[in-house]
Amino acid sequence: MAALDSASLLLGSSVRGLNSFLDTSTIIALSVFFALLCACIIIGHLLHGNRWANESILALLLGLCAGVVVLLVTKEENSRILSFSENLFFLYLLPPIIFNAGFQVKKKQFFKNFSTILLFGVFGTLISFCVISVGVFLLFEKLGITALNVKQHLAIGAILSATDSVCTLQVLSQDETPFLYSIVFGEGVVNDATSIVLFNAVQSLDVSDINGLTVLQLLGNFLYLFFTSTILGIVAGLLSAFIIKTLYFGRHSTDREVALMMLMAYLSYMLAELLDLSGILTVFFCGIVMSHYTWHNVTESSRITTKHAFATISFIAETFIFLYVGMDALDIEKWKASKASPATSIAVSATLFGLVLVGRAAFVFPIANISNLIKKRDSAKIEFRRQFIIWWAGLMRGAVTIALSYSEFSSSSGTSSTSSEDNLMITCTIIVVLFSTIVFGSITKPLIEAVLLRHYKPAVSDATDFPSIEDLRSLFIENGAESSSQQESNAPSRSSLRLLMTHPHITVHYLWRKFDDKFMRPVFGGRGFVPYVPGSPAEPGSPAQPAHENQENNI
Amino acid sequence: MAALDSASLLLGSSVRGLNSFLDTSTIIALSVFFALLCACIIIGHLLHGNRWANESILALLLGLCAGVVVLLVTKEENSRILSFSENLFFLYLLPPIIFNAGFQVKKKQFFKNFSTILLFGVFGTLISFCVISVGVFLLFEKLGITALNVKQHLAIGAILSATDSVCTLQVLSQDETPFLYSIVFGEGVVNDATSIVLFNAVQSLDVSDINGLTVLQLLGNFLYLFFTSTILGIVAGLLSAFIIKTLYFGRHSTDREVALMMLMAYLSYMLAELLDLSGILTVFFCGIVMSHYTWHNVTESSRITTKHAFATISFIAETFIFLYVGMDALDIEKWKASKASPATSIAVSATLFGLVLVGRAAFVFPIANISNLIKKRDSAKIEFRRQFIIWWAGLMRGAVTIALSYSEFSSSSGTSSTSSEDNLMITCTIIVVLFSTIVFGSITKPLIEAVLLRHYKPAVSDATDFPSIEDLRSLFIENGAESSSQQESNAPSRSSLRLLMTHPHITVHYLWRKFDDKFMRPVFGGRGFVPYVPGSPAEPGSPAQPAHENQENNI
Repeated sequence: MAALDSASLLLGSSVRGLNSFLDTSTIIALSVFFALLCACIIIGHLLHGNRWANESILALLLGLCAGVVVLLVTKEENSRILSFSENLFFLYLLPPIIFNAGFQVKKKQFFKNFSTILLFGVFGTLISFCVISVGVFLLFEKLGITALNVKQHLAIGAILSATDSVCTLQVLSQDETPFLYSIVFGEGVVNDATSIVLFNAVQSLDVSDINGLTVLQLLGNFLYLFFTSTILGIVAGLLSAFIIKTLYFGRHSTDREVALMMLMAYLSYMLAELLDLSGILTVFFCGIVMSHYTWHNVTESSRITTKHAFATISFIAETFIFLYVGMDALDIEKWKASKASPATSIAVSATLFGLVLVGRAAFVFPIANISNLIKKRDSAKIEFRRQFIIWWAGLMRGAVTIALSYSEFSSSSGTSSTSSEDNLMITCTIIVVLFSTIVFGSITKPLIEAVLLRHYKPAVSDATDFPSIEDLRSLFIENGAESSSQQESNAPSRSSLRLLMTHPHITVHYLWRKFDDKFMRPVFGGRGFVPYVPGSPAEPGSPAQPAHENQENNI
Repeated sequence: MAALDSASLLLGSSVRGLNSFLDTSTIIALSVFFALLCACIIIGHLLHGNRWANESILALLLGLCAGVVVLLVTKEENSRILSFSENLFFLYLLPPIIFNAGFQVKKKQFFKNFSTILLFGVFGTLISFCVISVGVFLLFEKLGITALNVKQHLAIGAILSATDSVCTLQVLSQDETPFLYSIVFGEGVVNDATSIVLFNAVQSLDVSDINGLTVLQLLGNFLYLFFTSTILGIVAGLLSAFIIKTLYFGRHSTDREVALMMLMAYLSYMLAELLDLSGILTVFFCGIVMSHYTWHNVTESSRITTKHAFATISFIAETFIFLYVGMDALDIEKWKASKASPATSIAVSATLFGLVLVGRAAFVFPIANISNLIKKRDSAKIEFRRQFIIWWAGLMRGAVTIALSYSEFSSSSGTSSTSSEDNLMITCTIIVVLFSTIVFGSITKPLIEAVLLRHYKPAVSDATDFPSIEDLRSLFIENGAESSSQQESNAPSRSSLRLLMTHPHITVHYLWRKFDDKFMRPVFGGRGFVPYVPGSPAEPGSPAQPAHENQENNI
């Protein structure tokens, strides 16, 4: 089995057997990957309930095992049957994962913590970037690594600031710990965007001319990216809602609705990348808008299909990434090319990981405490226990880190002329990713149970962290929504003015709901604003079409 | 916009902008394709009910238009933003289409006509292959084309014998004309396998040593491929049913069930290709088995999801293929390289298409009449009107033809040294494909209405072509199934012996049902043999999970 690169996945190799149009190596690679994916699902199901294991770690370990097998079969020539490709990752695997995250996220919880998420995601990532860059600059000289220039030091900071939102999704439960989930996962999405922006900024940085203006430019660039990306995602989502509502696709075919939702979500990602925006942010907000409007405009069958199909595709992509990372880790050529002794590798990896720990601590605790100072109510504050979990759960590094690391250290000047220190950086990044995923991925779940849930068992998990406000809000909003649909009474607006002082985000939510009901939903559809479509039109075929009556009330 | 080849889709190009990890050209290509796909769906929906148009033709025309635009933008340099890749087609686009066809096919109708389908698919394709090969051999000399060798003449026969099952699916309706649908589509699937086997056989043929044994070897090879591919598909389907039934995935997650079904279907295709079998046949039978067993073992949500998700993916792949073919047709380099005058191109294309017409007529009418002679009942016979439609609906040539043509005439000795006659063959194949798809694709639907449905309007379409047998059978099978589950009475077996003489396929069906109920379903699950699983387990997320009670009776 020869070393294949990802090109052979799509490109017909010139070496082809007489009996096949397809090159055997691609088919072998795909067969192995699909067999491993099946194994992951089955073993993952059998391990369900085991709190130490999850599918990410399982896939990583299976990938490592497969790598060892391939290494033995090819007589230590190569462990990979597919090399890591940034295009495969950024174009095909990441978009469905992030889109599904936006599609399934609990919107209320997410927007309630929006300011905290932004603080962590933007300023936190910046602090982490600075700490890691400076740390690398100071410590690497002591380890004897001197070949890296200033730009590469900054790049390492950006690379290692990217937390892994994929593994976080599996470790944290949206039901048990909704507050932590929305903070850590929301931070992960914003953080992905921030670190990619930072990385790109570092790439195009003119090192000889750094001044105060550079920092301002960076900030302006980030804000521009953040808002344009978000708006593009919202526009794409609203467009899909409008098209599906106006053209009433369900009349003919539920499959076209599903196809259009998939294609438009993907198109929004591609357009964002085309315009040099952050596709991740775009597709995330596209997912949120689609779940708020488009999802309510389609037939009952389409709702069930999209919900599960998106989750399934995302699940397969996640598992695929971890398999891929596991298999890629044993790439013998890279280890040989790094020329470093095991001791140096371990020292560098430990240094990097230590900096990750410090870099994250340097922003989680300060930002959480500052945010606590601003909030008046005790129940709204983030206590130390939770700060610790936020710090801990965001330490995992994943595929984004590896992809950025390859981008910086392998393709800069062709694979052949890559220096041994560049290879050392790649192998050490891989060690950090493997270590953090396996160790933190397996410990986090039991840790959360031990630290948090044990103390909160009597209450209904940490969803009750704003008990009085939550109650007040739901009461208030239910009344407000009802009264606004019945009569345009002034009472809610008066009370909203009073509430704006005391509980700003409740008022924002209420005003948004009013705006949504009055202007957005009549145009773009949404819950209660589209006529009920029972199932899809009569569709033949062996798997019979079940009727979906009496379900409107459940949605 | 430079000419991109498909390699850039997955392979990171070495030319990359500072501000992006992904090469812009890939993103442009993907954006254009996804935007065109969206346009296809929307325009297709607006054209719904127009009997001249369908999505295949629309996609083809949109692809052509996009090709013209790209041609103008790049100043006649290139019309393609993606070149046709056999790997992309055979590995990613064809499997979901064929799997979905097997998954949604009406199994009763398909197996009732199984012998006729096999006759058409195997012997028909062989006859067509011989007629076209001999015709090309005799006629091409008169057109002044002499550079082709015997092997290439035979290859043209195999290439043009591959009917297009994708467009057939859109033109024929499984509801209005179930008999024709099952014959023409079933023939299409078997025919794909046959012509690929023929093509491979021709490729590896030792031309200098052809004798009677070669024909026998070819036949033996085909039979081996047919049976092993079918068995592999059935085994993969049964395995998925067994795993999902035994492990009871729905308990934890409906997404894993869906993922496992997708992955195992795809794995069966890959394994078949790895073993040099016909992946198309394998994945088709895998789809049939999955819809008969696996589909009944999963949760209600998974059933709806798989049914619509598979149909959606297949729909997107079909549309993508036609867009691709349309865009690829205007590849200016190929037209320049063929060096033939327009007159020669048209003459060669017309000759090829004439041979396709004759080749198909040479087997449809004889085989249909022979099959009529064997059948005793008048209602079972295929009358001339239907023979004509079978002939007509199978004249379309599609992506398989183009893929085989590229395989034979472009990659045999590298692109640069391809002779002008090889290029002429490719361009003429494209003309035949475009002409047959656009003309026959748009005329077939109205033609069927004019020829068939007008005469059959009073009856419930041509589903009633075996009225007495159908009634008898349904009555008989319902009774048989019930009595066998209640008591092991001897009455059905006695009557089955009598029936075996008069109506063999009814008896086969009855015996199969008995075997299925007694041995297969208890092990692999199936309708009525798995405990009812209401929906999926509690799943959080914004698109709320509707409960699926009271639906068991609908399935």
